[in-house]
Amino acid sequence: MESKYLQQREDGLWLTEDERENLKVSYRIREVVFAQDSPVQNIMILDSYDFGRMLVLDGVVQTTSIDGYIYNELIAHVPLNFHPNARNVLIIGGGDLGAAREVAKYPNIEQIDLVEIDELVVKVCKEYLPEVSGNLSDPRVNFLYQDGVKFVQNIQDQYDVIIVDSSDPVGPAQQLFELSFYKDLYRALREDGLMVCQSQSPIFHQDILTQTYKHIQSLFPVTKLYTAIVPTYPGGLWSFTLGSKKYATLTGSVRGKNTLYVNQEILENCFNLPEFLKRKIS
Amino acid sequence: MESKYLQQREDGLWLTEDERENLKVSYRIREVVFAQDSPVQNIMILDSYDFGRMLVLDGVVQTTSIDGYIYNELIAHVPLNFHPNARNVLIIGGGDLGAAREVAKYPNIEQIDLVEIDELVVKVCKEYLPEVSGNLSDPRVNFLYQDGVKFVQNIQDQYDVIIVDSSDPVGPAQQLFELSFYKDLYRALREDGLMVCQSQSPIFHQDILTQTYKHIQSLFPVTKLYTAIVPTYPGGLWSFTLGSKKYATLTGSVRGKNTLYVNQEILENCFNLPEFLKRKIS
Repeated sequence: MESKYLQQREDGLWLTEDERENLKVSYRIREVVFAQDSPVQNIMILDSYDFGRMLVLDGVVQTTSIDGYIYNELIAHVPLNFHPNARNVLIIGGGDLGAAREVAKYPNIEQIDLVEIDELVVKVCKEYLPEVSGNLSDPRVNFLYQDGVKFVQNIQDQYDVIIVDSSDPVGPAQQLFELSFYKDLYRALREDGLMVCQSQSPIFHQDILTQTYKHIQSLFPVTKLYTAIVPTYPGGLWSFTLGSKKYATLTGSVRGKNTLYVNQEILENCFNLPEFLKRKIS
Repeated sequence: MESKYLQQREDGLWLTEDERENLKVSYRIREVVFAQDSPVQNIMILDSYDFGRMLVLDGVVQTTSIDGYIYNELIAHVPLNFHPNARNVLIIGGGDLGAAREVAKYPNIEQIDLVEIDELVVKVCKEYLPEVSGNLSDPRVNFLYQDGVKFVQNIQDQYDVIIVDSSDPVGPAQQLFELSFYKDLYRALREDGLMVCQSQSPIFHQDILTQTYKHIQSLFPVTKLYTAIVPTYPGGLWSFTLGSKKYATLTGSVRGKNTLYVNQEILENCFNLPEFLKRKIS
């Protein structure tokens, strides 16, 4: 199978991520499992030597079999242990289903609305990336294939927790980093609701991180930054920002949730920021 | 300046790390600041667009201006806050002087022996990489340009803390990962001494990590694994293993030590391991 994102060389097939101007990462590929253009983007599932199967959108690695669980556990278990009695969860993006799979581990959750712009991503991840998606078939998950930005413009007082599982702020995901979007999230949440989003790399995207933090801080009385390791993202360290209308501390536990990265100590300590990052947001 | 490790392309000069079979990382280079073969290895200082100046040995990035402090703070401040009254410190490797610079922040330290096999690395880092080396000129640092493995074979009951700041376990550094070397370290330490070494990536080098942990555990009554983020190392997450003859908990503080990554919370929490890693070593 051919693709403009793949190069055949003497020593095999390679994917080179071309999104960054000054740093290129190349992955040796064992097999092209799936490759097709959707109406939104180019979608590939590649079996790589070092990271197992990877979801690749427009040539950029989004999640992998080997480490996808780290990001998904952090973006799901932290907000769900902040809110003491969440019932309705909205996930914006998250087409790989990894976040939804973690949310579904909580029996108190009654409904998970997943608003993903690209139906084919969900279909492909269910079929070819079960290590991440868990081939999720929980009846509480309600799939809505539409633009998440437009979706939340018409919602009020409806969700306990909103998880924004976006890709990088280029192309379709750009609007997910603007103040107007966070205002819509605020309105869509119940009076004791809270939201979380990925806020990019503390090493390479400090401008986006601080902008996101300020946006959320200007709207929510409680704003918390936390970090995790995501080996396949540039810089390894990744950030998440939580905005809460009411709850300000962890109340729950991940014990018994069958997690691979998060445990109770990690949950409690992910808010302890490196010194340079503390200074950045203070 | 030309080098077999650098490629001139249409969009500029690039360094491609070739050490890994299935993952290649390429850095766009602004300027070759220094490049020369020492009797031990090829040494370059490259000014990169994304990471600032980098020390590159045999084509592999060792440390950078932008994030070198993270590794150096973790390998130095953790052991120095475990030992309540260290006076004599041995650093094996560490030619970039970053670890020695952090150790020198402790007034209780009387002597820092730095055993580095390649004198030119020290000279070059002092001159061209001051962000990492601090152009260290502390009179307590005693430079010994020789093979660290051979050096410790003749030492007994001499050091309070030994820091093994090695490169990857290929070529000259391979012996630094063998059991006989840790036996020599044990003997070189005083009766209440402790050692720490970098034990590679928990994501990509689990075999080396668990081997190192087992070696140290077989010799020292107290063995502790801890982690930190090192953005320029593959996988981001990096591990360190501490072996102690007596002290089993943190006793000191990094307050006032002018650190950029480590603070008291990070110091106390770096031993809280991700769930998969806990299981791996248990």
